[in-house]
Amino acid sequence: MNEKKVLLTIFGATGDLAQRKLYPSLFRLYRKGVLADHFAVIGTARRPWSDEKYHQVITETIKDLEPTAAEEKEFSSHFYYQSHDVTDTSHYDTLKELSNKLDKKYQLEENRLFYLAMSPNFFGTIVSHLKSQKMLEVDGFHRVIIEKPFGSDYASAYKLNEEINQVFEEDDIYRIDHYLGKEMIQNLSAIRFANNIFESIWNNRYIDNVQINIAEDLGVEERGGYYDKSGALKDMVQNHILQILSLLAMEPPVAFSEKEIRAEKIKALEAVRIYSENEVRENFVRGQYTAGNIEDKNFEGYHSEANVASDSTTETFVAGKLLVDNFRWSGVPFYIRTGKRLTEKGSRINIIFKQVPFNLFKNDINAACDNGSLPPNILTIYIQPTEGFSLSLNGKEIGQGFTTVPIKLEQRNSSEIIENTPEAYEKLLLDALNGDGTNFTHWDEVAQSWRIVDVIRNTWDKEDASPLPYSAGTMGPKEAFELLEKSGSTWIWQPDDWYKDRGLL
Amino acid sequence: MNEKKVLLTIFGATGDLAQRKLYPSLFRLYRKGVLADHFAVIGTARRPWSDEKYHQVITETIKDLEPTAAEEKEFSSHFYYQSHDVTDTSHYDTLKELSNKLDKKYQLEENRLFYLAMSPNFFGTIVSHLKSQKMLEVDGFHRVIIEKPFGSDYASAYKLNEEINQVFEEDDIYRIDHYLGKEMIQNLSAIRFANNIFESIWNNRYIDNVQINIAEDLGVEERGGYYDKSGALKDMVQNHILQILSLLAMEPPVAFSEKEIRAEKIKALEAVRIYSENEVRENFVRGQYTAGNIEDKNFEGYHSEANVASDSTTETFVAGKLLVDNFRWSGVPFYIRTGKRLTEKGSRINIIFKQVPFNLFKNDINAACDNGSLPPNILTIYIQPTEGFSLSLNGKEIGQGFTTVPIKLEQRNSSEIIENTPEAYEKLLLDALNGDGTNFTHWDEVAQSWRIVDVIRNTWDKEDASPLPYSAGTMGPKEAFELLEKSGSTWIWQPDDWYKDRGLL
Repeated sequence: MNEKKVLLTIFGATGDLAQRKLYPSLFRLYRKGVLADHFAVIGTARRPWSDEKYHQVITETIKDLEPTAAEEKEFSSHFYYQSHDVTDTSHYDTLKELSNKLDKKYQLEENRLFYLAMSPNFFGTIVSHLKSQKMLEVDGFHRVIIEKPFGSDYASAYKLNEEINQVFEEDDIYRIDHYLGKEMIQNLSAIRFANNIFESIWNNRYIDNVQINIAEDLGVEERGGYYDKSGALKDMVQNHILQILSLLAMEPPVAFSEKEIRAEKIKALEAVRIYSENEVRENFVRGQYTAGNIEDKNFEGYHSEANVASDSTTETFVAGKLLVDNFRWSGVPFYIRTGKRLTEKGSRINIIFKQVPFNLFKNDINAACDNGSLPPNILTIYIQPTEGFSLSLNGKEIGQGFTTVPIKLEQRNSSEIIENTPEAYEKLLLDALNGDGTNFTHWDEVAQSWRIVDVIRNTWDKEDASPLPYSAGTMGPKEAFELLEKSGSTWIWQPDDWYKDRGLL
Repeated sequence: MNEKKVLLTIFGATGDLAQRKLYPSLFRLYRKGVLADHFAVIGTARRPWSDEKYHQVITETIKDLEPTAAEEKEFSSHFYYQSHDVTDTSHYDTLKELSNKLDKKYQLEENRLFYLAMSPNFFGTIVSHLKSQKMLEVDGFHRVIIEKPFGSDYASAYKLNEEINQVFEEDDIYRIDHYLGKEMIQNLSAIRFANNIFESIWNNRYIDNVQINIAEDLGVEERGGYYDKSGALKDMVQNHILQILSLLAMEPPVAFSEKEIRAEKIKALEAVRIYSENEVRENFVRGQYTAGNIEDKNFEGYHSEANVASDSTTETFVAGKLLVDNFRWSGVPFYIRTGKRLTEKGSRINIIFKQVPFNLFKNDINAACDNGSLPPNILTIYIQPTEGFSLSLNGKEIGQGFTTVPIKLEQRNSSEIIENTPEAYEKLLLDALNGDGTNFTHWDEVAQSWRIVDVIRNTWDKEDASPLPYSAGTMGPKEAFELLEKSGSTWIWQPDDWYKDRGLL
């Protein structure tokens, strides 16, 4: 790949995200030659680190990638640390000076990429200083990558966006949703638009319902402070789940370009019904985990987690039914489910097709269940931790007679392939270096997602009720199951759940 | 399974088919308890064997199934040998006497099943004697199983059928096409009618073409005498291939019953266009193998095979394009291909779906070929020697960018499962014992198949030309490839051939 020339300035350089994701991703890009002689990184944060200390940290974060001593030394030599108070104007002057110096030293052609990997409270302050101190008056590009959360509701997101827009054009703003960097999420478009058999039946005539699951077995871990203010709805639904929904629901774009894909995603999100309060109560369930057991290990309830209020009413689980009101999707529920301390970790999408209109095989195993209908075909897309597809079909049982049995056509990526798959952050960093915003979220998407989510949050906030309790190690409160039963559906976690639920496997 | 009470009389009891297929199948039914105390078998042929000799042969033919000594003895004790000249009336009286004796001895309730496993020349003679000597005036059922070939053209088949119909009702006639006993052929109906995603797109709006392959790597072996009179068209196309075509093309039956399925199969065969002589020349290719090499072994040409005339013009290979003129299939070619001494053994069906109407992924690997279109989705049904399905899709190549790559969802039965799958003959014998004719060919199907094939044969017979030569170890003469190229298609043998043909794999 071609070498990129860039000065990357990271705000929040001592933080968890920078250490876990950014430095290893930068090293991978370095190994591939995308970053070579002509790049430099300025790390900033409040702590008074030296460059030596910074290099030690960098070296530590990339050690899993087994760099040679020479690689380690040469790579970390491009990193510079600058202690920085984001509210202190004079600090930006220092930063500007260092930037100009590094630009000359490494011949970076004045390309500037800023990465805001810290509390969103400071995003506005930072970008306005970047402008006022003339750090953006460069001959190269100037782009900003912004970590989630982008606001905490529509109003705050709007205000934040206004502040950023004073400084950066929409085209130079790269709002991260790391799910969009995942291999299988990017594969959704290929599955739909490169396969006529799927796109031909990708609508309400053939699809019964769609299920988007993002399940975690972990609890809040060390993120209790943040999470208790956010909750599952804002942490997962407003961004990842609605992004996945828009990729599944959008019309085929005119071209496979940033502009055209965004236009279709926005249209899809605009077709998602914004519920009334009554509809929220009917279609959404929130839960909070209590103590329980996952794979023979006991876990405490949410209220006992560090940095969580003991009377917290924050939801750690959301299940809901969304409707997309347009010609393609009218009548097809999009069921979504996400939560912490669930039975197992797994992000996966199930497309549940309509059953055959008439069951010719009445004399078989299926006669006993569901008014004699056959199991539906299911396309399952595994996002993580395994990656791949499966298609659940009905076949004939081997032998005399004509009993149908489940057959599963499957392709799962091996752990070796997954190992070598670029990390989401690596891909997204490279996209930003390339100026390709396809896998980032446009303001219009953010805005519409908040409008969808705000009414849910507001309805809950008005209620006296607390989230429904569910034991750690389960798939959420029973009301989440009843939600689908009302509509005659069931959650599919493994594709063969349909059989297991009916005692057929 | 319930025990069946029956006297089975086999004409051709010393022959290859009886020894290779019937005795082992009967033993498997015996092991499953379908045949137990109340069955007897009379084997007849010209040779003067004793019961002892017959028992030795039976024992030999089932030894692969590893019977215990007790099983071997008890099973073969139900077998009786009767030397028999099918043209000698008095011999039928002897047979009748033995039949009545065994009926009493084993309490068979006068159920009689006759199996004609010998030259079709004698079918008429045998059945007319069965009637004239009053062997069919029994209180139980009387049914006849008839081995292929059923006639050698429409006229001879009609005449043969008339003779048999003098004696047996159509419902009591079981015309064997052993392909219909194969697991994956029976699975075709499940794949179509138990899977909404397939049946919804099983028509000319979504399917580009259908390919039916029955390839053999063997030559004519010891069947030269028969084969040289028959040829691939009559040996494979008139029966197996047209039966498969009818199962693929038929409309969903009203019920999954013999009567309804037959009605739909016949309708499908009646929709197959009967060609003019010009159309035959345009749409069919015949070949004959010459010396060549398969997997590093050299083989002689067809003219050097035993019992084959050295100037024989018999075809050992047929490729053709059939058209089904109805609402569902108009415009979809059904390509068929069968032959001996081809590259490898394999019976498989490829359903080649239409390509996406528009390729969004122009910047990729596929831009180089076929005016930038994407590879089609292909459903492959493996009939033998492996059994299973694969679905060829397009996915996204792992990593940055958006290059499409082939992905294959697959399920193949393991050799262990295949090992335990009932032999086609076992299933068909049991069907006949149960009086279920679903997997046998009705006269109307035979008749229509001959009408389709006769015009092809007659066109060839009028020509001076010989079959086109192809080397052993190839997939037929080049004209067979050109046949598809004319229509803008290519043969798919392995699903990834599409890629290989274009140098993409």
